[in-house]
Amino acid sequence: MLYIIGLGLGNEKDITLRGLEAVQKCDHVYMEAYTSLLSFGLSTGGLSTLEKLYGKPIIIADREMVEEKADDILLPALTSDVAFLVVGDPFGATTHTDLVVRAKTLGIDVEVVHNASVMNAVGVCGLQLYRYGETVSIPFFTDTWRPDSFYERIKKNRDLGLHTLCLLDIKVKEPSLESLSRGKKNYEPPRYMTINTAIEQLLEIEQNRGESAYDEDTSCVGFARLGSADQMIVAGTMRQLLAVDFGTPLHCLVIVGDTHPLEDEMLDLYKLERDSLDKKDNRSA
Amino acid sequence: MLYIIGLGLGNEKDITLRGLEAVQKCDHVYMEAYTSLLSFGLSTGGLSTLEKLYGKPIIIADREMVEEKADDILLPALTSDVAFLVVGDPFGATTHTDLVVRAKTLGIDVEVVHNASVMNAVGVCGLQLYRYGETVSIPFFTDTWRPDSFYERIKKNRDLGLHTLCLLDIKVKEPSLESLSRGKKNYEPPRYMTINTAIEQLLEIEQNRGESAYDEDTSCVGFARLGSADQMIVAGTMRQLLAVDFGTPLHCLVIVGDTHPLEDEMLDLYKLERDSLDKKDNRSA
Repeated sequence: MLYIIGLGLGNEKDITLRGLEAVQKCDHVYMEAYTSLLSFGLSTGGLSTLEKLYGKPIIIADREMVEEKADDILLPALTSDVAFLVVGDPFGATTHTDLVVRAKTLGIDVEVVHNASVMNAVGVCGLQLYRYGETVSIPFFTDTWRPDSFYERIKKNRDLGLHTLCLLDIKVKEPSLESLSRGKKNYEPPRYMTINTAIEQLLEIEQNRGESAYDEDTSCVGFARLGSADQMIVAGTMRQLLAVDFGTPLHCLVIVGDTHPLEDEMLDLYKLERDSLDKKDNRSA
Repeated sequence: MLYIIGLGLGNEKDITLRGLEAVQKCDHVYMEAYTSLLSFGLSTGGLSTLEKLYGKPIIIADREMVEEKADDILLPALTSDVAFLVVGDPFGATTHTDLVVRAKTLGIDVEVVHNASVMNAVGVCGLQLYRYGETVSIPFFTDTWRPDSFYERIKKNRDLGLHTLCLLDIKVKEPSLESLSRGKKNYEPPRYMTINTAIEQLLEIEQNRGESAYDEDTSCVGFARLGSADQMIVAGTMRQLLAVDFGTPLHCLVIVGDTHPLEDEMLDLYKLERDSLDKKDNRSA
């Protein structure tokens, strides 16, 4: 049996009881490294906290391992219980459908343990989840590559009055261009896009395209470390949020569409004008 | 402190460790009855299972209590710890923003414990969550009231190639028309819309409107008891799903938009043509 277990967003205690029971009975425990390195502070002792909680050693599976050596993870699941741990929900922002399809093809039973993901936890700001349009991903611009295909999707959402969740780029274990040209993989240091960078890029694209999808006065909500004890949620215009220091990653951004009065009331709780404590208190709604 | 705690979708073990710790330290524990009566089998002994797990008595708060007597729930949170338990995520399909706004107005600290909700757990069928458009709610038709405003929203999603999550009507503790006219509240028995009824209504609207938003051959995914041990997920055309008995509630429906090959591969795992065991096995992906 392959258990794909969502760990939620904050820390080791965001696993569900069912998830914990499943991982505790597994013979092999893998954890996807793509976002977990950060979310659970694995680089700063978080891994041993998890291992203690589970009573098991954890093998960190980076993207390369999941994509290129999936069978090493999957084949033992034919004869024993294997856990694959995922930050958020197994089918949230970072999806693991490929692993499921591969497992099923090999005849392996798969059980999914759901959890919160950024896709539903953004609901905490008060904007109704059913009023979101298509989600967009904003990649880091480079000197020569400044993609803007998400601009049209934001515009379509806004034309319909819908909110837009923008997932911001994460670069973890990316081979450097230099190393690729030498045929040997060296890795760039990890980079996580800030809300500030995302807004700068968005405004640059608006300036180039000029189709008035949004502007500096467009209402947004910035989320940093969503679901963690030190999460930060600030509502304001793009201009206002540009000046906010959201601190350490992960960040994401919502571009606000047409709002209902109850949505406005909730957003007011996160507005910049209020006492700054309101914006920072522990997981407060 | 007011803790608003998501319980997840399946059973008592879908609470997170953090949620469990919070509820165990609360002096008063309320649980919203709107969907929980069903999801956690509260009518069949589920309540005592939860009370045993939490070591606390639970007060069931129906919609009337939450909407009309919210202060009874909230005021004790000024001086003690109060838990408000919610099926799914506190800001998932059934939202509790009004309770948060009211609590904040009264000067009460609010802490949210996230969990999976139908809004992200539908990801299990393999359709990418970021490719969903606006979510629609399908209300029960009556003889005289056959609303169809969601038709346009489905059409817009489909024009954009996006998937549409349809939440299906729940009628719990609705005063009967007869009793309202007598000025005394009697309640209708609870009703939960099936996938079959939803599709019948959808096809009736398409026939009336004739704008080709979808038809009998449109690809859909039906979900029953999502996240539970006996969840059922079937992919097929509207016509095919009309003939499927999805069993007990809750049901929801996804109308499939344009798909990516990896989405197709996952959907194939849930197609009707396959061994029926595949569609029914425990929470399998």
